[in-house]
Amino acid sequence: MSGPADRAIGVFDSGVGGLTVVRALRRELPGEHIVYLGDTARVPYGSKSPSTVLRYSLQNARFLLARGIKQLVIAFNTASAAALPDLEGALPVPVLGAVAPGAAEAVAATRTGRIGVIGTLGTVRSSSYRRALAALRPDVQAAAVACPLFVPLAEEGWTEGDVPRQVALRYLGELFAALEDIDTIVLGCTHYPLLQPLLQQVAHDLTGRTVRLVDSAGAMARATRAELAARGALREGTGGTLECFVTDAARIDEVGPRFLGEPLGPVAQVDI
Amino acid sequence: MSGPADRAIGVFDSGVGGLTVVRALRRELPGEHIVYLGDTARVPYGSKSPSTVLRYSLQNARFLLARGIKQLVIAFNTASAAALPDLEGALPVPVLGAVAPGAAEAVAATRTGRIGVIGTLGTVRSSSYRRALAALRPDVQAAAVACPLFVPLAEEGWTEGDVPRQVALRYLGELFAALEDIDTIVLGCTHYPLLQPLLQQVAHDLTGRTVRLVDSAGAMARATRAELAARGALREGTGGTLECFVTDAARIDEVGPRFLGEPLGPVAQVDI
Repeated sequence: MSGPADRAIGVFDSGVGGLTVVRALRRELPGEHIVYLGDTARVPYGSKSPSTVLRYSLQNARFLLARGIKQLVIAFNTASAAALPDLEGALPVPVLGAVAPGAAEAVAATRTGRIGVIGTLGTVRSSSYRRALAALRPDVQAAAVACPLFVPLAEEGWTEGDVPRQVALRYLGELFAALEDIDTIVLGCTHYPLLQPLLQQVAHDLTGRTVRLVDSAGAMARATRAELAARGALREGTGGTLECFVTDAARIDEVGPRFLGEPLGPVAQVDI
Repeated sequence: MSGPADRAIGVFDSGVGGLTVVRALRRELPGEHIVYLGDTARVPYGSKSPSTVLRYSLQNARFLLARGIKQLVIAFNTASAAALPDLEGALPVPVLGAVAPGAAEAVAATRTGRIGVIGTLGTVRSSSYRRALAALRPDVQAAAVACPLFVPLAEEGWTEGDVPRQVALRYLGELFAALEDIDTIVLGCTHYPLLQPLLQQVAHDLTGRTVRLVDSAGAMARATRAELAARGALREGTGGTLECFVTDAARIDEVGPRFLGEPLGPVAQVDI
């Protein structure tokens, strides 16, 4: 018999990066069915106006709603910043954004009260993490550094070796120079979990200490568990399925599995 | 007295990369007035449909036409591929695209008849250079490799040192492995002239020979000179001015001078 808990979690992203959120969800909640939509035909959203991002996000959400989801997860920062309140008001299911869960885990983790944020240029420029951190704990100090090379490194699969290490040394070096005593860094971009082992090592090499890295994808998965559990809507156990849709299929077969961490299965191309 | 030759050359690009074309134009034609438009609010065009790219390109062209230009230069591959024939049909001034000049110089330069092309993923996927090369000389063999890390490296100003060198070794290594006896490489992206000294060295280190690099920005400047000279519309001498417009001013002051190779002067933000 199929009940309300058996309905899927809907996840959308402007591209493939949100598959790291799917990966975290499948680890955290192996019983949950997941429907993923990557709007790869219109990627990136970061260079579009907030009204366009909202319009596209509503279209993506409606596509997922038509598949009977019980929960919506916005897997990337741009749409979370531009569309989360409107989507929450417009949709009949709860909506989880990309920024708040990572900010909450960082605030819980820091002992020095000094948090670093790394993300895309758009994310850093929007100050969305700074605002979320300040709202949670006004006395926290934060520094943010944009890392434009990390996304293409992750997409190219260059996640270890000398090149990504030197790039990481430069970006994290800037971060530690901007604010002393940072003990926690939020990975504020869905692409960055692929670089996490490298970033962990480089942060240690630069500071001589273990710096806590908050993977915002993992934080979103844990927040989703809490949200579903509170509503009695968790699908426990295992056997969760994954359906993937993209609006443009170019490169998804090559890049997708890197982000998902497992074979991708068939991906359907759809018009939104 | 001001005559038809005194009217400006109009150049547009989706972002700042086209400033390398302006730089080449100002070297080749120091007497020419230039008006540049970077559609930085809607960058990148590579992920948009051809009909949208055409619509935006027409809007950009009309903005420049309203400023009395005598010649239009489309400084980037995406719009050249999607909009050049339509713009040529719709506009009252000659239009020069980004692909043909570099392809023509490469065909003229090669002795082995084997040409390499490097560019963005969109440019390589579109096969625009392959088609242009084949149209000029059907017996030429070409291999193309997408180099997604070169654009952020150029924008970050990482154009020398170990990181860009290792990245270049990898991409050019792929190119030389794909086709033997390449003696000429087209830099098929407006960002790449910033990496030219490095690419020249790396190509030499990989092959033990001097490989001819065709800078498509320089090729466009030479083709513009030929076009204007043929119409008697050249403004000889020096003293050419530069007016710059962007649709979003973020980062232009930081990144622009790197691409232009000189101070940028005041940049006006406009709505298109």
